[in-house]
Amino acid sequence: MFSKETYVNRRRQLKEKVGSGLLLFIGNDESGMNYEDNTYDFRQDSTFLYYFGLPYAGLNAIIDIDNDREIIFGNELTIDDIVWMGTQPTLHEKAQSVGIEETRPAAELVKYLDSARRSGQPVHYLPTYRPEHRLKLQEYLGVKPGAEQPSIAFIRAVVDQRNHKTAEEIAEIERACDVTADMHIAAIRMVRPGMKECEVSAAINAVAEAAGCRLSFPIIATVNGQTLHNHYHGNVMKPGQMLLVDAGAETEMGYAGDMSSTICVDPTFTPRQKMIYDIQVASHLAAVEALRPGVPFKDVYELSCRVVCEGLKALGIMKGDPAEAVEAGAHAMFYPCGLGHMMGLDVHDMENLGEVWVGYDGQPKSTQFGRKSLRLARPLEPGFVHTIEPGIYFIPELIDLWKSQHKFEDFINYAEVEKWRDFTGLRNEEDYLITETGARRLGKKIPLTTEEVEAMRQS
Amino acid sequence: MFSKETYVNRRRQLKEKVGSGLLLFIGNDESGMNYEDNTYDFRQDSTFLYYFGLPYAGLNAIIDIDNDREIIFGNELTIDDIVWMGTQPTLHEKAQSVGIEETRPAAELVKYLDSARRSGQPVHYLPTYRPEHRLKLQEYLGVKPGAEQPSIAFIRAVVDQRNHKTAEEIAEIERACDVTADMHIAAIRMVRPGMKECEVSAAINAVAEAAGCRLSFPIIATVNGQTLHNHYHGNVMKPGQMLLVDAGAETEMGYAGDMSSTICVDPTFTPRQKMIYDIQVASHLAAVEALRPGVPFKDVYELSCRVVCEGLKALGIMKGDPAEAVEAGAHAMFYPCGLGHMMGLDVHDMENLGEVWVGYDGQPKSTQFGRKSLRLARPLEPGFVHTIEPGIYFIPELIDLWKSQHKFEDFINYAEVEKWRDFTGLRNEEDYLITETGARRLGKKIPLTTEEVEAMRQS
Repeated sequence: MFSKETYVNRRRQLKEKVGSGLLLFIGNDESGMNYEDNTYDFRQDSTFLYYFGLPYAGLNAIIDIDNDREIIFGNELTIDDIVWMGTQPTLHEKAQSVGIEETRPAAELVKYLDSARRSGQPVHYLPTYRPEHRLKLQEYLGVKPGAEQPSIAFIRAVVDQRNHKTAEEIAEIERACDVTADMHIAAIRMVRPGMKECEVSAAINAVAEAAGCRLSFPIIATVNGQTLHNHYHGNVMKPGQMLLVDAGAETEMGYAGDMSSTICVDPTFTPRQKMIYDIQVASHLAAVEALRPGVPFKDVYELSCRVVCEGLKALGIMKGDPAEAVEAGAHAMFYPCGLGHMMGLDVHDMENLGEVWVGYDGQPKSTQFGRKSLRLARPLEPGFVHTIEPGIYFIPELIDLWKSQHKFEDFINYAEVEKWRDFTGLRNEEDYLITETGARRLGKKIPLTTEEVEAMRQS
Repeated sequence: MFSKETYVNRRRQLKEKVGSGLLLFIGNDESGMNYEDNTYDFRQDSTFLYYFGLPYAGLNAIIDIDNDREIIFGNELTIDDIVWMGTQPTLHEKAQSVGIEETRPAAELVKYLDSARRSGQPVHYLPTYRPEHRLKLQEYLGVKPGAEQPSIAFIRAVVDQRNHKTAEEIAEIERACDVTADMHIAAIRMVRPGMKECEVSAAINAVAEAAGCRLSFPIIATVNGQTLHNHYHGNVMKPGQMLLVDAGAETEMGYAGDMSSTICVDPTFTPRQKMIYDIQVASHLAAVEALRPGVPFKDVYELSCRVVCEGLKALGIMKGDPAEAVEAGAHAMFYPCGLGHMMGLDVHDMENLGEVWVGYDGQPKSTQFGRKSLRLARPLEPGFVHTIEPGIYFIPELIDLWKSQHKFEDFINYAEVEKWRDFTGLRNEEDYLITETGARRLGKKIPLTTEEVEAMRQS
């Protein structure tokens, strides 16, 4: 945890921003896998972590701005808890460590909220993303599941704070990025024909765990990189294939790293693989070059798309004017995802609070296929931390669908595309901090170009 | 998956057992960690897996016994799903692979249930263990969260089937046990002073993953073995300490292994550690020796407790008559847990259906501290698969509590106990199948005695 003052200051700023009312913070509970007590690795809600720091299940908190009270609700451990789970500080001691003096038994939260509502005080809460949150809102506030009305004022205040990373947060994120880089370096060094994907994912996970971290999201380690979120690890890697790895570490405090690499299964890439890889790298580097405060990330995305289209045009896969192709959305055949996303206490930072607030500052999102997957578009500001991860994918199902629909025939040369339909897909991903004057890559460098990957594969 | 016939036969037997009504099987959904789309590793509900075999999120099923219909409810993939998650067989193809011909869109389940209830047909459902189950029962059947009334007839029929493992299930469990043994062997070989617990847990997890398995429960790898379910892995192992490892693999089909080992951090145990270790091994072996059909597991537990008390009496830690000490519950100071539990598609098999049905066949459970943690008590039958895991623990908080309460002073020599209060704790655990004539250990052997552990540590 950070120092007590960090949490006290964060709450003070939040109270100033929202101004009045009662803020309800629903902490996460343990999540049973196949029965209640066989739980997944506990993950506290990130906003709860941000303001209250305590990584324990079964807690809720309120900030009653109008009455100047901050309370954590939860139960003390019993002797049975201690026998099975070990001893811990008391709830009151834990609360004090983050500057909270008032703690109450869990059951008293409903009474407190009832009393607030009877007195006409507005109760602000955030969007739900776990079924337990919906059950709790029903129990605490009588809100029917599906009829939640999260507080926009609360969301915007939280987003504004969490989007701007402080020096101590950046140091913690950079630690996550360093471990993340080590995970990728381990993968790049070990990949061999005949090895299974799960052997690589096992080793990647082990690097994170041995460093005292966990995964910031489920590992992608696949020879089918054209499937963007592919968590199947059962394939044997064959000569001539590429392994796409997307994996990140999360520190004990909850801060994430997130990088991707695409690795030749043989010691070197094929000339054909290099052709597409080089285009992806050019797009990646053009995007990085453009990062600075004030530049809308949407413009950086559009730039990265144009570079992809120019490269694919040079190979005869696309045709026509690259800028027009991008505007029409034709690039999304090969690049159907965004360029990057905010990163912090969540790998897609605050995705639960709504991308329209986090990445768009309330401006509308495109509904166009491909462009709609851009999670970050707003003008960049110092303190923003985000990923850069353009990719190029040949998705047979999408090729067949668009071809049958005669879609974008002015921009896509389907006869040529067919020759690449089994190419699979690739991306490389790094993490950046926006500084006062530009941007800085976070964490150790991992190989980006084919030459860099090959050099590490052969070392 | 097993063959189609396995699932068809399982459902046929279930229908015969329950006889009439409509059986509702609620499959599990994806579980978001810190936002909805950052999910934990998906785990299907084990009863759904047992009867319908499909390891996919978002499915529910019914067996309408009265109208002789079996239906799986779920939605087909969209092109967006395919871009992000890859192509899959259609729901109908998946259903056919387990002998189900009828599939319907997810939204039609409510209509089907409404119609059944209007016609007066009883709808049987199982206990809920995830918040999403409670939300679904509310939506599907109007059951208020907390007011669920699971069907005892349904529970008992499922328990009776799942408690008796078939040859193909035993082969699959044994595969899980072999990988589980490899996880422990890797741990025993690597432990060294100066290493962190998380380095060991990382390596254990990697063995499971590289074998295409996952963990059947969160790894315990701790120098504080006196805490029974301790998932903290941040300690550095020091000379003179022991590392208690409790870990198991789960196969792709969902079957579990579960073993424990206690490892000397130095190449050898201290004479003091051996004194307690030898008692645990004696208790373990006495229990294994007693396993055969017809013997109540409760009797085996009592026997294992007496052996512990006899051993501790020989060391002056306990006193009086061991049998009387066990009956009074004094042994639970050092052995506050059960001897073992059923194991199958869940590591604590069917814990969500209720231990009183699974392990007690409806007979009442003791409420005495220690004895109440015995998960299995019923007479053993061929086909039962369960663990054997007596342990000896010195829990400072429990020692202080009971000492202050003058509890069991006839059986516990507190002056002597104080000399051992920092001993920590140990257990060894193996998995057994009850056969027609006795019992058979499942999976590769892992070291059980101090000599066996030391031999492997030094190899």
